[in-house]
Amino acid sequence: MTRDKRSVITLTTDFGMEDGNVGVMKGVIYSINPDACIVDLSHDIAPQNIADAAYVLRRAYAYFPHGTVHMVVVDPGVGSERRAIALQSSEAFFVAPDNGVLTYVLRELREKGERARIIDLTEPAYWLPWVSNVFHGRDIFAPVAAHLSLGVEIDALGGEIDDVVMLSPLRLELRPGRIVGQVAHIDHFGNLLTNIPEADLLSLGDVIRIRVAEREIGGLSKTFAHGQEGDLIAYVDSSGHLAIAVVNGSAQQLLNCRVADSILVAMSQNRSSQQEAP
Amino acid sequence: MTRDKRSVITLTTDFGMEDGNVGVMKGVIYSINPDACIVDLSHDIAPQNIADAAYVLRRAYAYFPHGTVHMVVVDPGVGSERRAIALQSSEAFFVAPDNGVLTYVLRELREKGERARIIDLTEPAYWLPWVSNVFHGRDIFAPVAAHLSLGVEIDALGGEIDDVVMLSPLRLELRPGRIVGQVAHIDHFGNLLTNIPEADLLSLGDVIRIRVAEREIGGLSKTFAHGQEGDLIAYVDSSGHLAIAVVNGSAQQLLNCRVADSILVAMSQNRSSQQEAP
Amino acid sequence: MTRDKRSVITLTTDFGMEDGNVGVMKGVIYSINPDACIVDLSHDIAPQNIADAAYVLRRAYAYFPHGTVHMVVVDPGVGSERRAIALQSSEAFFVAPDNGVLTYVLRELREKGERARIIDLTEPAYWLPWVSNVFHGRDIFAPVAAHLSLGVEIDALGGEIDDVVMLSPLRLELRPGRIVGQVAHIDHFGNLLTNIPEADLLSLGDVIRIRVAEREIGGLSKTFAHGQEGDLIAYVDSSGHLAIAVVNGSAQQLLNCRVADSILVAMSQNRSSQQEAP
Repeated sequence: MTRDKRSVITLTTDFGMEDGNVGVMKGVIYSINPDACIVDLSHDIAPQNIADAAYVLRRAYAYFPHGTVHMVVVDPGVGSERRAIALQSSEAFFVAPDNGVLTYVLRELREKGERARIIDLTEPAYWLPWVSNVFHGRDIFAPVAAHLSLGVEIDALGGEIDDVVMLSPLRLELRPGRIVGQVAHIDHFGNLLTNIPEADLLSLGDVIRIRVAEREIGGLSKTFAHGQEGDLIAYVDSSGHLAIAVVNGSAQQLLNCRVADSILVAMSQNRSSQQEAP
Repeated sequence: MTRDKRSVITLTTDFGMEDGNVGVMKGVIYSINPDACIVDLSHDIAPQNIADAAYVLRRAYAYFPHGTVHMVVVDPGVGSERRAIALQSSEAFFVAPDNGVLTYVLRELREKGERARIIDLTEPAYWLPWVSNVFHGRDIFAPVAAHLSLGVEIDALGGEIDDVVMLSPLRLELRPGRIVGQVAHIDHFGNLLTNIPEADLLSLGDVIRIRVAEREIGGLSKTFAHGQEGDLIAYVDSSGHLAIAVVNGSAQQLLNCRVADSILVAMSQNRSSQQEAP
Repeated sequence: MTRDKRSVITLTTDFGMEDGNVGVMKGVIYSINPDACIVDLSHDIAPQNIADAAYVLRRAYAYFPHGTVHMVVVDPGVGSERRAIALQSSEAFFVAPDNGVLTYVLRELREKGERARIIDLTEPAYWLPWVSNVFHGRDIFAPVAAHLSLGVEIDALGGEIDDVVMLSPLRLELRPGRIVGQVAHIDHFGNLLTNIPEADLLSLGDVIRIRVAEREIGGLSKTFAHGQEGDLIAYVDSSGHLAIAVVNGSAQQLLNCRVADSILVAMSQNRSSQQEAP
């Protein structure tokens, strides 16, 4: 992969911004690569929520320039025996603890038939000289990401490995006439983003009903603007999955939903009846 | 307007930072212009609060370098028939949905006698290839802003238009001896920022009283530091308008005020009496 | 000190991000130095909390490149007689109000035997042309930081001074067999970070007990991952000081602690007995 000194490095953490720790990691990166271009993906991942960080990264990474280094530090196992890893795809690099945070990226790469190279980060020459037990974001991940952005080969960072920690897949059942999925993420607006792909929705035909938290929604809206304030609607989100919203409101608050709650989509009974009637 | 590859692009949204969507827009921008210099103006606009985004932008835009591209995505009508627009002034560019979010900028330009050119964004060559119904920030506004920062002429983006959506003006009544205005914004510290300009305050003379939420404040303080902790004071804010604060506290909490609440300023009765007395 | 046009400038404020004021300061900086590289250290310092800003800055500054300009605007005295100052060490510059916010940096420099030069910022040629009473971050500190990043000599900014405002030290009592310190900062995870240095902990031997909020912790954990979810543990934080955490939880919530609360560390009675026994 050819790289530019101005490589983009993205950061995804559960650090929040108030303590200065995100800034410290940027200081480390700029000390190694003064021309790095750092983008905050999210620092508001809920503490220790590996699955949510994996989700946020998966939705975002494809929109970055070729050669971007994506660094994730949601790391409840810091200082323990959990490995630190780097991953190289044809398009990007990833640097993270080996705790499942790259699960969705790896699945997507495998679905595309791409074999990613994964390295166990064991070469301290690319770390800070003194490594703490509790802040590998600063001491290992940031310097490794900075060195990758400078063009260091991934093989210099440690030995190749095959097995990494993977999260259990979300539930997604595709049956004739019905789909059962889960809430995968709840966004800033309180919209419920699910794991049900648009293509599977379309396979049910154009008249469907969606059941969530004992409420039923008839059909998909094209956008939030179609409907009255307060209406509960279903739509296809910007990553191409089913989502649930309240127009100018919060579906999470209305439905009191949580991540992993079930979502059922079925062909509309009425329409089926109509079709069968004549 | 001459432009530099390192043009600044500012972002103002109601997205929050937790979902990675702001990062995604930055990825899109850097993919088109690797030398862009992106500044977050605010991502904590209250959801769908067009007026507040308009206010935050108006206070900020004049402090950026010549040629800066200001992109605003507070966009409850995304995916509907609302237009997407770009605006060029002698100093800057603006890219936003046509929903009133540029109201205060446009009024200020018109007060300066400047005629801004406004373009209806209809040319998909400057968008992402696939445009979702719900995330035009990523699919239209970010790529358009990036192309403008590279020097693309605004006329390439679509046809010129004259009429755009404008918000109703805030109430500002200037009468002999008294002014009635409104709370225009409540800031991070709980200070109440109003729409009453300093020049109009001064026209009342140097002894005034301010009435807000059934409390009365006698005169202007030069700064927060003049007064005891907990004092309710009036002062001229950094944009040259009347503001109300509690020293080392929150005026919003003390007064339980909201945006659009009325503020009355009058010549001091006592002083008036004194003046009329002899 | 040699400097690069791409000098890093860090920002630490209590402004929050919602009002656009941080963005405005960046606009001012880029207007003066288009090649500046700006890093947000924290904008979530609690309003007017000078001590906390001083703490966050002290933990962070050493991780930035040589020549970095650190700008701090936690400034309840803005517009009053409080001075604005710049400080030059062998490694970095600091720009801040003279209210104690540089206390910990100055103490650390003095402990290293380094004499920092401190300048009273009185030269308006390096400020914005119009200076408000309430936003010196925009009108004085940002332009001064930008000019420093361009290579302006610190002496051009005003006259040298010796005395600056210093905060009272935190309590740290080192006695034979016991140490009393204080909670210095509570981080995003609810961990209690203290002012007790690791070296002093080690001087007590390897079997110690820690008392905080009427709870006792036996010994130090190497990291959060050693222990069960919900365990109250003590560890050495990434700055080399004693800290208290709840594994995958919040020590602040469990213990209902606040900054300045006392922390006692003592040699373990049991171990002492054992040692004395035979």
